[in-house]
Amino acid sequence: MRYIKELKEGDRVSDIYMIKQKNAATTKNGKPYDNIILQDRTGTIDAKNWEPNSAATDEFDVHDYVEIVGEVTSFNGALQVNIKRARRCSEGEYDASDYLPVSPYDIEGMYEELIKFVDSVKDQYLNRLLCMLFKEDVEFIKKFKMSSAAKSVHHSFVGGLLQHTLAVTRMCDFYCERYEKLNRDLLVTAALCHDIAKTNELSLYPDNDYTDSGNFLGHIVMGVEMVDRAIHGTNERPGIEGFPAVLENELKHCILSHHGELEFGSPKKPAIMEAVALNFADNTDAKLQTFTEILESEDGTGWLGYKKNFESNVIATRMS
Amino acid sequence: MRYIKELKEGDRVSDIYMIKQKNAATTKNGKPYDNIILQDRTGTIDAKNWEPNSAATDEFDVHDYVEIVGEVTSFNGALQVNIKRARRCSEGEYDASDYLPVSPYDIEGMYEELIKFVDSVKDQYLNRLLCMLFKEDVEFIKKFKMSSAAKSVHHSFVGGLLQHTLAVTRMCDFYCERYEKLNRDLLVTAALCHDIAKTNELSLYPDNDYTDSGNFLGHIVMGVEMVDRAIHGTNERPGIEGFPAVLENELKHCILSHHGELEFGSPKKPAIMEAVALNFADNTDAKLQTFTEILESEDGTGWLGYKKNFESNVIATRMS
Amino acid sequence: MRYIKELKEGDRVSDIYMIKQKNAATTKNGKPYDNIILQDRTGTIDAKNWEPNSAATDEFDVHDYVEIVGEVTSFNGALQVNIKRARRCSEGEYDASDYLPVSPYDIEGMYEELIKFVDSVKDQYLNRLLCMLFKEDVEFIKKFKMSSAAKSVHHSFVGGLLQHTLAVTRMCDFYCERYEKLNRDLLVTAALCHDIAKTNELSLYPDNDYTDSGNFLGHIVMGVEMVDRAIHGTNERPGIEGFPAVLENELKHCILSHHGELEFGSPKKPAIMEAVALNFADNTDAKLQTFTEILESEDGTGWLGYKKNFESNVIATRMS
Amino acid sequence: MRYIKELKEGDRVSDIYMIKQKNAATTKNGKPYDNIILQDRTGTIDAKNWEPNSAATDEFDVHDYVEIVGEVTSFNGALQVNIKRARRCSEGEYDASDYLPVSPYDIEGMYEELIKFVDSVKDQYLNRLLCMLFKEDVEFIKKFKMSSAAKSVHHSFVGGLLQHTLAVTRMCDFYCERYEKLNRDLLVTAALCHDIAKTNELSLYPDNDYTDSGNFLGHIVMGVEMVDRAIHGTNERPGIEGFPAVLENELKHCILSHHGELEFGSPKKPAIMEAVALNFADNTDAKLQTFTEILESEDGTGWLGYKKNFESNVIATRMS
Amino acid sequence: MRYIKELKEGDRVSDIYMIKQKNAATTKNGKPYDNIILQDRTGTIDAKNWEPNSAATDEFDVHDYVEIVGEVTSFNGALQVNIKRARRCSEGEYDASDYLPVSPYDIEGMYEELIKFVDSVKDQYLNRLLCMLFKEDVEFIKKFKMSSAAKSVHHSFVGGLLQHTLAVTRMCDFYCERYEKLNRDLLVTAALCHDIAKTNELSLYPDNDYTDSGNFLGHIVMGVEMVDRAIHGTNERPGIEGFPAVLENELKHCILSHHGELEFGSPKKPAIMEAVALNFADNTDAKLQTFTEILESEDGTGWLGYKKNFESNVIATRMS
Amino acid sequence: MRYIKELKEGDRVSDIYMIKQKNAATTKNGKPYDNIILQDRTGTIDAKNWEPNSAATDEFDVHDYVEIVGEVTSFNGALQVNIKRARRCSEGEYDASDYLPVSPYDIEGMYEELIKFVDSVKDQYLNRLLCMLFKEDVEFIKKFKMSSAAKSVHHSFVGGLLQHTLAVTRMCDFYCERYEKLNRDLLVTAALCHDIAKTNELSLYPDNDYTDSGNFLGHIVMGVEMVDRAIHGTNERPGIEGFPAVLENELKHCILSHHGELEFGSPKKPAIMEAVALNFADNTDAKLQTFTEILESEDGTGWLGYKKNFESNVIATRMS
Repeated sequence: MRYIKELKEGDRVSDIYMIKQKNAATTKNGKPYDNIILQDRTGTIDAKNWEPNSAATDEFDVHDYVEIVGEVTSFNGALQVNIKRARRCSEGEYDASDYLPVSPYDIEGMYEELIKFVDSVKDQYLNRLLCMLFKEDVEFIKKFKMSSAAKSVHHSFVGGLLQHTLAVTRMCDFYCERYEKLNRDLLVTAALCHDIAKTNELSLYPDNDYTDSGNFLGHIVMGVEMVDRAIHGTNERPGIEGFPAVLENELKHCILSHHGELEFGSPKKPAIMEAVALNFADNTDAKLQTFTEILESEDGTGWLGYKKNFESNVIATRMS
Repeated sequence: MRYIKELKEGDRVSDIYMIKQKNAATTKNGKPYDNIILQDRTGTIDAKNWEPNSAATDEFDVHDYVEIVGEVTSFNGALQVNIKRARRCSEGEYDASDYLPVSPYDIEGMYEELIKFVDSVKDQYLNRLLCMLFKEDVEFIKKFKMSSAAKSVHHSFVGGLLQHTLAVTRMCDFYCERYEKLNRDLLVTAALCHDIAKTNELSLYPDNDYTDSGNFLGHIVMGVEMVDRAIHGTNERPGIEGFPAVLENELKHCILSHHGELEFGSPKKPAIMEAVALNFADNTDAKLQTFTEILESEDGTGWLGYKKNFESNVIATRMS
Repeated sequence: MRYIKELKEGDRVSDIYMIKQKNAATTKNGKPYDNIILQDRTGTIDAKNWEPNSAATDEFDVHDYVEIVGEVTSFNGALQVNIKRARRCSEGEYDASDYLPVSPYDIEGMYEELIKFVDSVKDQYLNRLLCMLFKEDVEFIKKFKMSSAAKSVHHSFVGGLLQHTLAVTRMCDFYCERYEKLNRDLLVTAALCHDIAKTNELSLYPDNDYTDSGNFLGHIVMGVEMVDRAIHGTNERPGIEGFPAVLENELKHCILSHHGELEFGSPKKPAIMEAVALNFADNTDAKLQTFTEILESEDGTGWLGYKKNFESNVIATRMS
Repeated sequence: MRYIKELKEGDRVSDIYMIKQKNAATTKNGKPYDNIILQDRTGTIDAKNWEPNSAATDEFDVHDYVEIVGEVTSFNGALQVNIKRARRCSEGEYDASDYLPVSPYDIEGMYEELIKFVDSVKDQYLNRLLCMLFKEDVEFIKKFKMSSAAKSVHHSFVGGLLQHTLAVTRMCDFYCERYEKLNRDLLVTAALCHDIAKTNELSLYPDNDYTDSGNFLGHIVMGVEMVDRAIHGTNERPGIEGFPAVLENELKHCILSHHGELEFGSPKKPAIMEAVALNFADNTDAKLQTFTEILESEDGTGWLGYKKNFESNVIATRMS
Repeated sequence: MRYIKELKEGDRVSDIYMIKQKNAATTKNGKPYDNIILQDRTGTIDAKNWEPNSAATDEFDVHDYVEIVGEVTSFNGALQVNIKRARRCSEGEYDASDYLPVSPYDIEGMYEELIKFVDSVKDQYLNRLLCMLFKEDVEFIKKFKMSSAAKSVHHSFVGGLLQHTLAVTRMCDFYCERYEKLNRDLLVTAALCHDIAKTNELSLYPDNDYTDSGNFLGHIVMGVEMVDRAIHGTNERPGIEGFPAVLENELKHCILSHHGELEFGSPKKPAIMEAVALNFADNTDAKLQTFTEILESEDGTGWLGYKKNFESNVIATRMS
Repeated sequence: MRYIKELKEGDRVSDIYMIKQKNAATTKNGKPYDNIILQDRTGTIDAKNWEPNSAATDEFDVHDYVEIVGEVTSFNGALQVNIKRARRCSEGEYDASDYLPVSPYDIEGMYEELIKFVDSVKDQYLNRLLCMLFKEDVEFIKKFKMSSAAKSVHHSFVGGLLQHTLAVTRMCDFYCERYEKLNRDLLVTAALCHDIAKTNELSLYPDNDYTDSGNFLGHIVMGVEMVDRAIHGTNERPGIEGFPAVLENELKHCILSHHGELEFGSPKKPAIMEAVALNFADNTDAKLQTFTEILESEDGTGWLGYKKNFESNVIATRMS
């Protein structure tokens, strides 16, 4: 694919882009045309469709992926695409991660590492639960890979949920080596599952906004519901027979309490050591990633101003 | 039944009592006997079983209901029962409310009033859900009638959950007459369901203590789970077909947010007017009932001292 | 009266309007004229007085009520009144509620219901106090009917204080039926009096802004002062002989503590059950009314955005 | 007077003491007698009245001042007074400050200094108000001199209110020299009046406990009421004619806001500079006096343990 | 010196001003010139340098003090200086306090009063420490006189630190007369030293902004470090032999705890009475000075609006 | 060494024990003797010295280590040592860790691992600083190995400070592998130094209580002072020439801010990413170690009750 950042005057274009904006307009002569902004993950470019209702261009709308055939021209010192043909594409023809903010790490690579963690859980019930979710539920897996971990602040990009889940799981795994009272099966399972309902709390990109159920219930409670349905089954899907009640309570509790404080939306404080550990891993990754994104987004070496997340004026170390 | 408060020296006893305590002891002559405390709702009395292993007395334990045949004597100025025969009773032989703190209102009468509220809900899905719980689920209904609404503080007696649920529902009904933006079906259903999982959060009397899942999850989240299972079904029980997703979210949201503040254990603040109303009704009844119980438990007319629930020294009005 | 919303091009106007704005201006030819905005409760309209100093137009200023004779024309697509004659009206010629935001409920009807509550109080001292205020003090009654219950947020319209006071009193009356420890005379009196000093804390419409004493003392303390003066008399007015000291303390305490928390401006927490009840009734009506006003002011059915009063994104139920 | 601390075995006693406790008892032979504890400001001593109903001893009760004639004996290694005669004294026969915790400063001397501050206020209305209270109201002056400034914590002794009021006034006077924007008349008046209602909030010694109105209203609001009645008069006493409304508001506001924070019981935050200054003077004296009393009550030079008022382990400086 | 406020059209200028802004610009004919804003403590004036690179004008930059020779003209109704010659001045040629916001009190006069306090401290070690700082360390003294006491809010002008330090010391001196448990030597020394590191926390005027170490460490901790180095010496300067360890701890503690609360940046709460007193003196002066500056900056006599520092709408007293 | 737990009736004792308590007593015959409690890390045993002033027993006191020669007898069913000879030992004759609560990890082994971290720091200035402290300052190293990390709560045993410092450093090292924006030299140095002043905040075992400077300044500020003295030198010891000022600020800032919140005693919030990371590592280890110690100190598998540190009733996972 030819990325927008690489386009030059005179190029011929024949690629799929996402429609970021589209407005009907009229030339001074009264001729209707469309002002369009095309987007991929490298940036945006203006485009004009001078024949909006011709047979050569499909109907399409904002957020659609559209194959654009056209020419790159320069107008008032800025590049612009004159559209010749436009064809609305269907899912499968494009890779959404080419068009959206995306994790700097390879999504499939991260998924493979995550599956290794799944396979490392020895308890049969926890392992079964993880497999149902992360290895068998195709729709869930697809959404899990595409989701961000937040609407903004940190990990708000395609693959963000996966990247965050993996970072938290790795940190929990590190804790297990150092604190022998921790049960690794329980903690690794809880780490893998703690944010699974982010897939429902936020709509997928390019929206990435709170859903109805996200607003009403939140990912913490919906995560417990997902585990509950997986264990007890629903009208549509059988559950896991013989799942021990205590283990079910402990796992749900880790998910419920992973924000650590009632005022952060966890209705229970961590009551087992694994829940305490998960809360720390989640919080540590969130904050270190947030700081990383602040440093990446700023130029220069001076003080970066007050950041609400850190309640402080912040700065990068000046050590080389 | 002859209540403990009415017993006098010389009486012959032949009634069922609850065993509050039981300890093995030995006389100075080395003969084993049992020190026992009998309880009913009017008080307690010491008892001695001088022949603990004879054929005349069954094996029994703390919290068992036991038919006691014996004689009331006086020892060191206190009454005491010398046990002749003791027979462990089975459920059905006694009425637990004779032995435990119990609501001043008639339980069956309150249940009837509650069912009228169930029947007044016109929306087919909400009505179906309420019937499944309050009219069809025999085990749930039994626990619901026996449960307290709290471990202590207020409504901590048999029937307390029913009394509280009814008071909250009536108040919500009153609100609906006065604030026309409130949807009565939704609010009455939410009022009836808001504390249903108290039946699982606290064990039944005489224990009335937090269960494992009560500690780990709490009645707010378990209440949402109960609604979720009723709507979507489980391996064991079908759900309600066609239940609208928005309605499901709104009802669950009312339950989730009914404590009103994150720091009181609700992971979401009320976001619809019905949830705001439910929070007020729940809180108003809890506080007015708590104050009522303080006034009932105190003698005299002076200042009653600092009460943590009200962050104040309190007193009854001295108006006649 | 012909309301502004109903005016059409070509109409002749001859009615009283409130002056919302008035600015002196000059035509391009150097001729002075007045730019005026007329207001009634249905909206506003631009007006021009081309002869500001002629005998045909009185002197008048912002917030005056002025009889306008003129013609409705259209200028740049907007309606405008060309003033021919303007006469400053005196109180009595107009009904302020035609010109200001006003309660949706009939003011006199609400006042009648309120008086029924006054008459229902049997204690002679409390009844006397209520009569002095609500039946005999003509100036107070007039201000009470015209006042809002707040500068903004909720009930900020003519009749708002009356509407709120009535709603709180009704709710307290409902509590009395349900919680027998409540003394109805005391609670109903406290409900009727809890916000009486709002008549002094806020200036009347169209200002509706904090007064000097409102800023310095607030309606809670001024309410206690009003009760104190009514009971003990002043240089100008005798008090109520024999008013029991305990009852005086209890009533003042209910007023003082009705905000429920020190940080909300109550210098004492509720210490009697009636004060607890009043606090709940006040808060419940304030919040349900606020939510009602939010729903009334918004179009559409989607999420309405974060509302500070509810610390949440809010929405109307989508049940029909 | 012979103080309790100075009594020795064999002494004959003939002095007035306060009755701290009195209980009827019976000897082994069935003869009734009274167990009594006598108190003066140096301590307490046990006493026995072996003939409680004889002509030689008046009826008396706890908190009475009683002239005791008797003999000091030793019983079980402790001193004890055998009462021969007991006569209930009337006010005027004794000086209460001999029997109660009392300010280390001379009460009349402090009162004289306070009157000098009264006389230094030039504004006629404020001066009139101060004279009415501090120079003319005999009963108030008597209570003001006897009151403590708190139930415990600091200045909880006879004369404590006077000592505290004087210290606050002096400090405000010092501020006025340094901060020229402060109005001295207003600030000195507010300092003198800020705690006047402590005379009603706490009962006099030896009780020194919250009164009914102290619990219900508190000294802040009652202080405003006292000023209100002095200015506007009551059924029993005329007010001050022509007292300017703004000045009345400002003075009341200083009293209302002198605790500085809503959560400390002030329903308004200081809004004028004089109110800010009064709050600092009040708080500074309270805390420095509290620390002084801690240091006086402790022996030794080491760390004195955690003190809740200072949220810290405290210690005296070890500088000589 | 001729102040900017006094300049009139046609004046010839020949004085030193501070450069507040300087931007290169081009005339329509393409000729380069400089847009400059000149500043002194009375205000600012626009200036143009039409020959920026000529021999007649030195290189200079923002914050430089520059002798300007030129003429005052009027352009578009505003005064403007046409620069003929410009010479960059060196320190000593000008008095910075002519160009910057400056204390209304004489800096040298305040310094003399401060030195009297230094001389009044009798303890040899504390006196030695104070002399090292306030009488011998020339560079420190110079910065101390020039520093403000805050970036904004209060005392943010040249001499502000000195004025605040003196006010706090005077108030502590007053406390010592009234509260005999206070050790004057310790308290006066602590008052003099409490903000010494403000000289490093904020850069000097005209910047007056947080330095690197100000951001990273703050003046509280740096103040302790300055005392530590003075007592124990460094590679560059010997310390004070025999300084008692307890005294060192007490003095440092007063500095550390002078903000009074952990959330205000003091890592320890005051644990000795002198630390409590210092905290009150510091806070009292800060708040009364802030209120003074608010009153000075506002015209009129009405309500001045909500002020965050006082969490209230504020107003000046209307007493004459 | 023969541990107290292993002693049996009839044993002859000849070993060094710590004196936990010592009280002079008298036999019924009026003969003086000493009641003593001996301690080692396995427990305590009563002892009697029947000849306290004989030549066979040295003078000794609580916390002394004393070689005891004697015999184990049984008295009233409890073991007791009859002392024959007692010799006060000097440091070096015993290993304190035999007598005190001690880390479960080998102290020298942990120290070796810590030195490896020291050696891994490449920056010459930071490495020099670390060597001065951890490799050259013999007295500091000795105290560092013996210190606990807290008076109670967690790591309150000999070697606790070392164990905690190592755990924090390892976790920081782990973070550096995962978050590339972190500077490893700075973060590892800060981790090693963050609690160095705990060696002065708490006295050594067996006291382990707050010192004077611990109370007045705390380990956070004293840690910064220790770094300051190491860098800048004192009268007694030269500093590190050329240490960069920015680096000094950053390192001190990490130490200052490592508690993360002002209310936890850090006068600054973390402003660089390394400070954020250190705060998380410190907090994570503290909480996971605290939970570990709770689980180790409790028997059984049920709920362990409310733990203030976790604001929750806690329990161990019941997974095997």
